[in-house]
Amino acid sequence: MNFASDNTAGAHPKIMEAIVRANAGRVLPYGRDDETTRVRKLVDETFETETEVFFVATGTAANSLSLSVTVPPWGAIACHATAHIHDHESTGPSLFAGGAKTMGIDGPAGKFTADALRTVALTGRGDEHYAQVRAASVTQLTEKGTTYRVEEVAAIGAVCRDLGMNLHMDGARFANAVASLNCTPAEMTWKAGVDVLSFGGTKNGCLALDAVVFFNKDLGREFLFQQKRSGHVLSKMRMMAAQMEAYLQDDLWLKNARHSNAMATRLADGLARLPGVEITQAVEGNQVFPRLPKKMVTALKAKGFQFYERGEGPDGKVAIRLVPAFDIPPEDVDAFIQTAKGAA
Amino acid sequence: MNFASDNTAGAHPKIMEAIVRANAGRVLPYGRDDETTRVRKLVDETFETETEVFFVATGTAANSLSLSVTVPPWGAIACHATAHIHDHESTGPSLFAGGAKTMGIDGPAGKFTADALRTVALTGRGDEHYAQVRAASVTQLTEKGTTYRVEEVAAIGAVCRDLGMNLHMDGARFANAVASLNCTPAEMTWKAGVDVLSFGGTKNGCLALDAVVFFNKDLGREFLFQQKRSGHVLSKMRMMAAQMEAYLQDDLWLKNARHSNAMATRLADGLARLPGVEITQAVEGNQVFPRLPKKMVTALKAKGFQFYERGEGPDGKVAIRLVPAFDIPPEDVDAFIQTAKGAA
Amino acid sequence: MNFASDNTAGAHPKIMEAIVRANAGRVLPYGRDDETTRVRKLVDETFETETEVFFVATGTAANSLSLSVTVPPWGAIACHATAHIHDHESTGPSLFAGGAKTMGIDGPAGKFTADALRTVALTGRGDEHYAQVRAASVTQLTEKGTTYRVEEVAAIGAVCRDLGMNLHMDGARFANAVASLNCTPAEMTWKAGVDVLSFGGTKNGCLALDAVVFFNKDLGREFLFQQKRSGHVLSKMRMMAAQMEAYLQDDLWLKNARHSNAMATRLADGLARLPGVEITQAVEGNQVFPRLPKKMVTALKAKGFQFYERGEGPDGKVAIRLVPAFDIPPEDVDAFIQTAKGAA
Amino acid sequence: MNFASDNTAGAHPKIMEAIVRANAGRVLPYGRDDETTRVRKLVDETFETETEVFFVATGTAANSLSLSVTVPPWGAIACHATAHIHDHESTGPSLFAGGAKTMGIDGPAGKFTADALRTVALTGRGDEHYAQVRAASVTQLTEKGTTYRVEEVAAIGAVCRDLGMNLHMDGARFANAVASLNCTPAEMTWKAGVDVLSFGGTKNGCLALDAVVFFNKDLGREFLFQQKRSGHVLSKMRMMAAQMEAYLQDDLWLKNARHSNAMATRLADGLARLPGVEITQAVEGNQVFPRLPKKMVTALKAKGFQFYERGEGPDGKVAIRLVPAFDIPPEDVDAFIQTAKGAA
Repeated sequence: MNFASDNTAGAHPKIMEAIVRANAGRVLPYGRDDETTRVRKLVDETFETETEVFFVATGTAANSLSLSVTVPPWGAIACHATAHIHDHESTGPSLFAGGAKTMGIDGPAGKFTADALRTVALTGRGDEHYAQVRAASVTQLTEKGTTYRVEEVAAIGAVCRDLGMNLHMDGARFANAVASLNCTPAEMTWKAGVDVLSFGGTKNGCLALDAVVFFNKDLGREFLFQQKRSGHVLSKMRMMAAQMEAYLQDDLWLKNARHSNAMATRLADGLARLPGVEITQAVEGNQVFPRLPKKMVTALKAKGFQFYERGEGPDGKVAIRLVPAFDIPPEDVDAFIQTAKGAA
Repeated sequence: MNFASDNTAGAHPKIMEAIVRANAGRVLPYGRDDETTRVRKLVDETFETETEVFFVATGTAANSLSLSVTVPPWGAIACHATAHIHDHESTGPSLFAGGAKTMGIDGPAGKFTADALRTVALTGRGDEHYAQVRAASVTQLTEKGTTYRVEEVAAIGAVCRDLGMNLHMDGARFANAVASLNCTPAEMTWKAGVDVLSFGGTKNGCLALDAVVFFNKDLGREFLFQQKRSGHVLSKMRMMAAQMEAYLQDDLWLKNARHSNAMATRLADGLARLPGVEITQAVEGNQVFPRLPKKMVTALKAKGFQFYERGEGPDGKVAIRLVPAFDIPPEDVDAFIQTAKGAA
Repeated sequence: MNFASDNTAGAHPKIMEAIVRANAGRVLPYGRDDETTRVRKLVDETFETETEVFFVATGTAANSLSLSVTVPPWGAIACHATAHIHDHESTGPSLFAGGAKTMGIDGPAGKFTADALRTVALTGRGDEHYAQVRAASVTQLTEKGTTYRVEEVAAIGAVCRDLGMNLHMDGARFANAVASLNCTPAEMTWKAGVDVLSFGGTKNGCLALDAVVFFNKDLGREFLFQQKRSGHVLSKMRMMAAQMEAYLQDDLWLKNARHSNAMATRLADGLARLPGVEITQAVEGNQVFPRLPKKMVTALKAKGFQFYERGEGPDGKVAIRLVPAFDIPPEDVDAFIQTAKGAA
Repeated sequence: MNFASDNTAGAHPKIMEAIVRANAGRVLPYGRDDETTRVRKLVDETFETETEVFFVATGTAANSLSLSVTVPPWGAIACHATAHIHDHESTGPSLFAGGAKTMGIDGPAGKFTADALRTVALTGRGDEHYAQVRAASVTQLTEKGTTYRVEEVAAIGAVCRDLGMNLHMDGARFANAVASLNCTPAEMTWKAGVDVLSFGGTKNGCLALDAVVFFNKDLGREFLFQQKRSGHVLSKMRMMAAQMEAYLQDDLWLKNARHSNAMATRLADGLARLPGVEITQAVEGNQVFPRLPKKMVTALKAKGFQFYERGEGPDGKVAIRLVPAFDIPPEDVDAFIQTAKGAA
C-alpha cells in the first residue's frame, strides 16, 4: 500500500498492450516509422493545434532538454523556488543549457505570480554582470499539489510576451491539472502563452514516456539535434509512440488522472475529519500534504503504508506527502484513513 | 526484408515477457527495487568480477555518459576515425564530458593499433595548448564489421596503463564480438585492461537497454549523479533490469548474436560467389560490406530489400552495408542471394 | 570625484612602472620566463607556504576558474545569497564547472555561518536528485562591506573538512580584509582551512591582475589546462608577474588597502553625524552602505559625485553604495561630507 | 636572438605609452568609458563599415568566444586540420560553444578549398546522428605561413552563404596577411563574406590585445554576455582601447607587419642559397619553415639562436619554424644566416 509516489505503480495494461503490439515486425528506427508519424497527429488533435512533438523516457529529460532551447547559455529560467527543475533534477537544466541557470522565486502554494516574475526578469536586464532571465517555467501541478488557474498562466504568459521571454510548463502531472481544472489542454497551454510543455506520461500510467510538445514551432525546429546528442532518441521509437497512442486514446490519460485526483480528495477529506490532522495545502490534484500526530504516523508505518516524511515540527506533528497513483484501489485509501483513525 | 540495421527488429519475445512480468505490482522507483539489485549480481556473474552497472535506454547514452567520467574537460578520447562516438553521435561525448573531444586515429579494418595510440597520446602531453589524451575507446565490433582480438585489446590496454589513461569499449555489438571470437566476456574486457564497457542490448534483442559496466569501480563511483542529471535514470527502473535479466538468462544474448553472425556469414558467402561482387571487409560479426554491380542493387531494391548505400565508385559498383538482425529468418538471407544472383 | 567603485581608478604608478620595465627584451611566453618563476616564490613567502599560483586578468576569471576545479559537474558551491559568484558573474561558474551550480545561503551582514552551511550541505547528500554540495565559497570582504573573522572562516573550514568539501575564498578585496582584521594572509586562508583563494589585485592598484592561489596543491595540479582552454593564459605572462611583484613588494597591497579602508571609515564617520543619515552595515573595509535623505543625494549628484543608488525606501531615503578607491584623496572624502552636510 | 615566436617580443613603445597615458584619471569601468567608445569608431573606419567590436587579452579567447556564437551546441566548425583552433587551443572552442566541435579538413599549404568545405558541410546535413557543420574558420596567415588570397576567401564565403553557415577568420596574424597581399582590411573580410574576425594584436606589437570584430552585427548582438560570463571583460577596459588606438594610428599595425614580413623573406632568401637547405612552404608572411642539415641546427643553437624544432627526417634534415617578431633587427637575421652559412 504505497502512497510514496505515483512512480511506484507499473504501467496501465493498455499501455503495455500497445507496446507489445508495436513490437511486432520490422520498421525504420529513430522515429522514421509510420506509427510515430500517426501519433504526432494525435497529439496535434489533442492540443487543437500544430505542434512539434518529441518522445523521451523520463521527466528530467523532457524538462532539461526543452528548457535548454528556451534560453541562451548566459540566460536564466525563472521558476518557483520549490520547482522540480530547480532543486530535484540535480544540475540537469544547466548541463543541457550550456551553463544557464534556474532562478527560484518564492510564493505561497508552490506558485509564483506574474508580478513577481516581472520583477525578477527586470533585475539586471541588459547588464552583462547578471544572468539574463529569458524564460519562465511553471509547474502544473505544483510541487505543493496545487494548480495554476488558466488565467494565472495567461498572466505569466503575458509578462513573457512583453519581455521577450519563453514560457515552459513542467507538466509531469499535467493530466491531473487538466482534469482538476476542467479546461482543455489547449486552454491550459498555448492559448495561455505556453511555448513548450513537458507532457508527463510516466507518473500517470505510461511505462517510460514524457513528451516535449512545442507550440512555438520555431523553438522546436532543431530540437531533434539536441535530443539525439544527449542520447535521448530511442532507436525503437515506435515503442514510445505506441505508449502515447494508448495514452491519448479514449482519454485514458484523463481517466487515470481523474481517478488519482479523486483518491487524493477522498484521502484528504477522510484525514481532515480526524483530530490533530492538518491538511496544509489545497488538494487540487493527486497530492496531499498533511501534518499528522506522530503516533498516527507510527501506526500507519507499522501497518505497512509507505510515504515520504518531511520532518517533525515543534508541535510534534509530522509533515508527510501522500501521492495516490493512477491505479490505486479505493480500498487502500479507506484502509489508510481507518488506520489513521484508529491512532487518532 | 530489412537488412538496413539491427535496429529495425522488434525486441525478442522473452524480453517482452520479462517487461510485462516486471510491470506488475508496486516497487520503489529509480533502481531501488529488488529486481534491479538481483540483476546487478547477474551482471557480475557474467563478467566474473564485481562491477558497478547502470542501465540506460540508448547506446549513445551508454557511450557518452561512460566516456564522460574517463577524461577531464581538457581531455581527449582517442578512437578510430570511423568510431560511432567520433562521427555518429553528434556532439554527445563533448556535451557530457564538459567540452573534452574525441580524436580520430586512422587504421585499416576500422581498427587502430596500440602503437598508433601511443603516438597520439604522447603528442602535446603536458603542454596546455593541446587537449590531453587521457582515454581511449575501442569499438567492438568495429564500424567495419571486424573484431579486435583479445590480444589487440590487451596491447591497447597496456598503453593505457602505461600512460595513465582509461580504456573504454563501445560494445554496441559486444555480443557479436564475444560470439565470434569465442572468448569469455571477462577475457574481452577487464582481463584485457578495459575500465568501462558500453554493453549493448538494443541491437541484439532488447527493447531499449544498454548497460554501462564499470570494471574500474572507482571510475563508476559517482556515475549515478551524472546519469541522473542527464535524464537517464528511469523511474520504473525495474523495466530495465527485467530486460537485462532475460537477456543474460540461458545465454539469450549469445544465442541471438550467434544467429545474426551466422546469417552474415551465409550472406557474405553467397554473395561472394556471384560475378562482380566484392566483399570489402572481413566478416567477423553480423555486418557485411559488399560492393555490388549497380544493376544488382537496383534489382534488390525493386524486390523490396532494404539496406544503406554508401556511394557509387568509378567502376560503377555500389558500396552497401548489410546488417542481419538477431531474428532474421535464413529464408530472407537466401532470398537476398537469389535475387542478387538473378541480376548478376 | 568617483565613489562608484574601486574599478574606476587607474593602476598605481609602481604597478605601471613594473609593467613597463618587464616589457623590455625577449623572453619565453606563457609563463615560462624567469620573472614569473621568481614571483611565484614571492607569493609563497607572502602566504608562508608552498602554493600553486596562476595569474589571470579579471576577478570573474579568478573566481569561475578556481571554483571549477572544486566541484564535479553534478556539484554545487554554497555561498552567500549576495555573493558576487552567485549573482554578479552571470553564468560564469556554471560555464567552467560543466553545469555545477552556486547555491545562495541567507544570513545577516552578507555572511553565512558554519551551521547554515552544514544544513545546506547535508540536504540531499548522496541523493542523485540533488546537486551535491561539494564546495563552499566565502567572500572576503563580503558584498556588504563586512569581514569574516578568522575564527568564522575556520569554523566554515571545519565543516568543509568534515563533509569532504573544498573551501574557496573570493578575495577580490582580500587586502582590505587582511588590513582591517590585522591578521596574516596565512591565518586568513590556509590556516583556517581555505583550499584556494581568488587573490584580488585589480580593485586595489593593479592594472589587470587577479591571482588564483592554491594552498591545496592537488586541487591546482591541472589548473593550467583549464586556464589555457578558457583563453586565460596570456602569452606575455611577464606583464602579469610584474604586476604581482610590484604589488607585494614593500607591502604595496596592504598600504593601498589601509588607505581605502581609512577613507571609508572617515566617510562613514562624517556622514553618520549628519541628521537623517543611516549607515546600514558595519564598515570593516572600503565599502560604505548609507541611506541618505533624497535631497542630500540630489545635492551630491549635482556637485558631480558619482556612486551607485540602490532604490528609494518608503521613508524617502535612498540607499547608496560608496567605495573609495586605493588612491582617493582625503580631500575628496571631506568634500563629499561637506556637500552632504550642506544638504542636511 | 629569438626566432621561436612573435610572442617573445615585448610590446611596441607606442603601445606602452598609450597604456600609461590611458591609466591616468578615473573613468567608468567595463568599457563604458569615452576612450573605448572612440576606439570602436576607429575600428569601423579601418574596416570601412559598421562593426561590433570587443577587446580581449588573448588570441585563444578571441577565437573561442567568437566561434561560440557561430554555431549551435550540436554544430561543427570546419577548419584546416592544422588550424590553431583545432589542435592548439586545447578544448577551448568546445568549452564555449557548449560541446560543438571543430572538424579538420586536409589540404596543401595549410589551406582548405571551397569545394572541400562544401563536401564536409553536406555530410550528414540534417541527420541528427551527425554534428551539423554550421560555420567555417580560415586562418590568415595559415599555420604554414601562407595566405588565403582574397578570391579564395570569397569562394569559401560563397559556400557559407549558400549553405547557411557563418564564416570566421582567425586573424592572429591578420596584419601580416593584409600587408603581404596588399589588399584592404575590408576586402579581406566582410567584402569576401567573413562574418567575424579575430583581429590579432598581441603577436604584432600589442601587450595583450586581440579584438573580436563582428561584420555580421546580428551575430555580435549578445556577445558581451558571453564575454562577461567567461571572465574576459576587463574592468579597466580603457587599457585595452588604448592599445587598439595606438595600434591603428598611423598604421602602426601594418608597419609592424611589413617589417616582420620583410625579415622573414630576407631570412628565407638567405637560407635558400645555402647548400642542403630546403624552404618547405611559400613565405607569404612572417613565418619560415625550412629544413636544415642537422649540423647547421646544432651550430645555430650553440650560438644561442632560439627556434622550434619539428622532428628530424630520414634524410637527417631537421624541420624548424622561424618567426621573426615585429621588432627584430635586420642584424639578427643576418647573423642567423651567417651562422647557418658557416655550418653549411
